Amino acid sequence: MNISELGEFGLIDLLRELVDNTGDKNSSARPELILGIGDDAAAWQGDLSVQLATSDTLVQDVHFTLDFISWEDLGWRAMSVNLSDIAAMGGLPRYALVSLSLPGSTEVDSVTDLYRGMIELANKHGTVIVGGNISAAPQVVINITVLGRTNPGKKHILKRSSARIGDKIAVTGYLGTSAAGLKILKENVRLDSESEQPLRQAFLRPNPRIQEGQLLVEKGVRCAIDISDGLVADLGHICKASNVGARIDSSRIPVQPAVTSHFGDKALGLAFSGGEDYELLFTAPLEVINSVKDAASCPVTVIGKIIEDNPGEVLVPDDNEHSLSLESTGWKHF
Amino acid sequence: MNISELGEFGLIDLLRELVDNTGDKNSSARPELILGIGDDAAAWQGDLSVQLATSDTLVQDVHFTLDFISWEDLGWRAMSVNLSDIAAMGGLPRYALVSLSLPGSTEVDSVTDLYRGMIELANKHGTVIVGGNISAAPQVVINITVLGRTNPGKKHILKRSSARIGDKIAVTGYLGTSAAGLKILKENVRLDSESEQPLRQAFLRPNPRIQEGQLLVEKGVRCAIDISDGLVADLGHICKASNVGARIDSSRIPVQPAVTSHFGDKALGLAFSGGEDYELLFTAPLEVINSVKDAASCPVTVIGKIIEDNPGEVLVPDDNEHSLSLESTGWKHF
Repeated sequence: MNISELGEFGLIDLLRELVDNTGDKNSSARPELILGIGDDAAAWQGDLSVQLATSDTLVQDVHFTLDFISWEDLGWRAMSVNLSDIAAMGGLPRYALVSLSLPGSTEVDSVTDLYRGMIELANKHGTVIVGGNISAAPQVVINITVLGRTNPGKKHILKRSSARIGDKIAVTGYLGTSAAGLKILKENVRLDSESEQPLRQAFLRPNPRIQEGQLLVEKGVRCAIDISDGLVADLGHICKASNVGARIDSSRIPVQPAVTSHFGDKALGLAFSGGEDYELLFTAPLEVINSVKDAASCPVTVIGKIIEDNPGEVLVPDDNEHSLSLESTGWKHF
Repeated sequence: MNISELGEFGLIDLLRELVDNTGDKNSSARPELILGIGDDAAAWQGDLSVQLATSDTLVQDVHFTLDFISWEDLGWRAMSVNLSDIAAMGGLPRYALVSLSLPGSTEVDSVTDLYRGMIELANKHGTVIVGGNISAAPQVVINITVLGRTNPGKKHILKRSSARIGDKIAVTGYLGTSAAGLKILKENVRLDSESEQPLRQAFLRPNPRIQEGQLLVEKGVRCAIDISDGLVADLGHICKASNVGARIDSSRIPVQPAVTSHFGDKALGLAFSGGEDYELLFTAPLEVINSVKDAASCPVTVIGKIIEDNPGEVLVPDDNEHSLSLESTGWKHF
């Protein structure tokens, strides 16, 4: 059955049921929820922590094509890009509003699969879908707003504007993996399945670094961003917001062996500007980064430092110590 | 200049400046704002009132066409549909996230006009734009999330599920005016300008009933919805959520004289199912409605009552006292 046969309100009822039945019942956000899906607005009991809100949009044939992502993975991905923004603030996600624009010919099963993917990831992080809306459109547009907060009792958030001269620059996990996964999917490349799977998954089902964001706050980091546009572009955002420069040591960029072995010379390019890794990029004094490293359950790698020169710019010295200034080479709309 | 020439980040900088320079500086939401546009998420100091969140999407050629609405009016309208949802909860809007999907050929001036319209209305209600995102798309899609709260110290919200048998049904303002305005715009009808202007404005620049929502809470109303889908459809939402029936006296529906005189027999149809009036439809004991009426600065009209029979349905008796059951005749997607 397609959604024009079921109708808008039938679809909303079905999705509400799915959220009620499969959503995280033990989420700490649930006891404070007063009204979820089904009224003019969602409502919950407020608290005195710092509140966070972020919104992101995925547009068919701009951000994704249904040729090589399933509806379920698409749901996961759409949720993850928003949860990642909350992670980058050192926050805990709590509630999500999902706005879907869909062609009438979309299968009902596709929409429930999309929701299943969103719910699966939301459940991992105690996030409850509490509202949104559905409208007709010529192509699929998914907009998710996630509302979060700092850990109760804490007020400290991670800002782009808090980098200080002398800070080291570090990153969680590996870079370029998602872009490598996308290339493999697009070009239908086959590697051995052990190498291939993590690359595909990095693109299809990125894991927002919620726990790591919490760890950064706990250890006293003050400046972070998530890598969505690409390392150079996102570090550029930090440099502009903090009015500092950055210098990256490209030999230190953490790249997965499967990416290096398959993409060779191009692996570093993917790491620099591929984007969508949803790793956390942060700056702090070295001893703070080391304490994060000791406590983290994922790799944490120092890749450069914050400098006074060239404020707003990211320098990547080449082998002859000539600085290449990369103003921004990440994902750009328009 | 079009937005593909300016680029995504240039456009964001421009819009941030516009919001900073023309946004409401005296809004009570401002002192509590920690981070607005420009980081991974917006951040503000939380409080103990009930928190509200709503999200709505306008899709080009589905919800609007640029043939007969200006970008500035479109911005106002997009903001108003969300503020109206907060009004229908008896809440006060505070922060807005704006997600725009736009063709690269869109003029920069069009986008700033859109923002001017949004900001103009947001300012009237102390609402600050604090974030969102911009992406490319083949047609314009505007998604706005508005975050609000109950008046500090009050916990009471207006729900769809609170209608009680014996309640009277009342509505603020007039119905069918927006649908009449849309018809006039679409068909390029000319009435005398005194009649025409309010009709056009009802469609182009609806006024969310924030103050009236507050008044409903103050006077003890417990059940409300805003009229977006249409009177019968939205009353149907109340009936379903409250598991009650409703009976409307069609002779009491408030319709503006200009609508009746121009649309004759069809005026009542516009009032019943035209939708998008963004008036508040609410139910309460008669004495409560009368106290609202005495204090309101807009018309408040009793149009029917909540009954035990036919739960989930809206009855509109005809002249011979035969009940016409109108399950839902409002705006439907798909």
